[in-house]
Amino acid sequence: MNVKIFDTPEVQDFLKTVAGFDQKGGSERGKKITHRILSDLYRTIDDFDITAEEYWSAVSLLNALGQASQFGLLSPGLGFDHYMDMRMDAADQEAKRTGGTPRTIEGPLYVAGAPEFESFARMDDDPDLDGETMWLHGQVRDTTGNPVPGAKIEIWHCNSKGGYSFFDKSQSPYNLRRTIIADAEGRYHALSVIPSGYGVPEGAPTDQILKMLGRHGERPAHIHYFVSAPGLQHLTTQINLAGDKYTYDDFAFATREELVVEGKRVEEHVEAKQHGADGPVTEVVFDIELSPTEKDELQNRHKRPRAMESESQESQLAGTATV
Amino acid sequence: MNVKIFDTPEVQDFLKTVAGFDQKGGSERGKKITHRILSDLYRTIDDFDITAEEYWSAVSLLNALGQASQFGLLSPGLGFDHYMDMRMDAADQEAKRTGGTPRTIEGPLYVAGAPEFESFARMDDDPDLDGETMWLHGQVRDTTGNPVPGAKIEIWHCNSKGGYSFFDKSQSPYNLRRTIIADAEGRYHALSVIPSGYGVPEGAPTDQILKMLGRHGERPAHIHYFVSAPGLQHLTTQINLAGDKYTYDDFAFATREELVVEGKRVEEHVEAKQHGADGPVTEVVFDIELSPTEKDELQNRHKRPRAMESESQESQLAGTATV
Repeated sequence: MNVKIFDTPEVQDFLKTVAGFDQKGGSERGKKITHRILSDLYRTIDDFDITAEEYWSAVSLLNALGQASQFGLLSPGLGFDHYMDMRMDAADQEAKRTGGTPRTIEGPLYVAGAPEFESFARMDDDPDLDGETMWLHGQVRDTTGNPVPGAKIEIWHCNSKGGYSFFDKSQSPYNLRRTIIADAEGRYHALSVIPSGYGVPEGAPTDQILKMLGRHGERPAHIHYFVSAPGLQHLTTQINLAGDKYTYDDFAFATREELVVEGKRVEEHVEAKQHGADGPVTEVVFDIELSPTEKDELQNRHKRPRAMESESQESQLAGTATV
Repeated sequence: MNVKIFDTPEVQDFLKTVAGFDQKGGSERGKKITHRILSDLYRTIDDFDITAEEYWSAVSLLNALGQASQFGLLSPGLGFDHYMDMRMDAADQEAKRTGGTPRTIEGPLYVAGAPEFESFARMDDDPDLDGETMWLHGQVRDTTGNPVPGAKIEIWHCNSKGGYSFFDKSQSPYNLRRTIIADAEGRYHALSVIPSGYGVPEGAPTDQILKMLGRHGERPAHIHYFVSAPGLQHLTTQINLAGDKYTYDDFAFATREELVVEGKRVEEHVEAKQHGADGPVTEVVFDIELSPTEKDELQNRHKRPRAMESESQESQLAGTATV
């Protein structure tokens, strides 16, 4: 129809009313952000002459996304998670907090409360017949090269079918999720299975959006990390296993050159064997460097609603708008 | 942290990648609209220095909205439905399709397939002990004043508790939903109960957003209409009953001066009595004027995923992105 009404006083006044500018209660910041987001969307409707049919199919898709709890999956697919990382990287640079292992996105699949072990953990609680045994280890150091004894390393990854425990109810509660406290030399070791890459469920709302953009929804095989220690900056990161078709074509934009790690096949690995591996292992080494910081808020992961085995939420934020 | 990265080449290139500009498949229009919406949101994150905590609580709220199927409820609360009406009004004006009863928003509570009657329908299938009996009638005319025999009038409204059948499973399937075909003089009559105003469920995700804006989620008592006839423009509208506290303060922005109707208490209404009313009625008169149009697409309601009693969706659009 191609009418343009966005800049009329009627629409501009209406937007202020909608955003609650004439109401006393509520959050000033929330109102301003809402006003901005609505203004942008209203203008987009005008500029692109969005039809009622298009608008309502989008509303329907938003409901479907929520029903499938997929906003946390769509979010990295639309680059928001990586964009938030880019902003944190820029803030680090501005504050001269340089060096250290690069961060990358957390993703929506962390579950709080995994079992904690010192120095070594066996991560697989469930048999995974197709899985290659993984011997994963490394050292946590600060940016001057000193080991960080007692560093807390949280690791979570999927099984050889691409499924994560908790979300995949066929797995034991904390399968492939562990917290390891680094030893006196800052070292950690884990016996696990090589995770598989995986994709957004075919036909799911997130997949529909990606297909509309001509994109795929595949992730390369990867392993998630939270690493923290007093006086050092909390690190949220992942390693990507080299050689996956999608290592450099991750729909979630989590890959960073420095985080791509080559697994090495070892027929007889003495240390892994001592820790219970029978047969060959794929050895994956990931050393971690943490930057120093005195700021408390940088020593902890940011708040975010996160799953925990009780099926309640870790954070009080869950389901609550704080903007 | 107050870093500004939106205008950097890295972010601008990233946005193009995210929107699939370098991919062959997908929808060109969908990519462009997505690129615009993402660009606006990325810029907003930068401008308002949105924290990870704020961002993730918004993601969590989007999931909660979808889980409660409330995007169709939030949408009018954020003025989108009224804005779409404003655009259609402007298009009508530009095309000189003037006159006729004003449109107003459909809302998310229509259900296709209601029982159809000629001239008169009794709408209440369920007893509503608190409900006042309503005698609702009017005439459908074209803008030159000629009656429109055979006009199709679809009416739906809530009961005296504010509940809509289909969504409120305690009610019979099509309670307070009817299609009436106008008689030879274009007249329709319905015996029903006066609907109540109602509010967004307390504490629901939509309510959280409205509270953040300092706004309430109340709607005045109202009655929904679809009215159509060959050669005339399809009308989606509502009447608001005068005297409700929220008649002029509707959270969904559906009220229009011309659509506010005064109910009149009649102790002994002969015609209503003939149609089964016992005792006094509240008489509500709503005459409807339809504008002429030769355009097929204006003679029908726009496509939109709509509920129907089978619990499937009326339109093939359901859950499908068409942008």
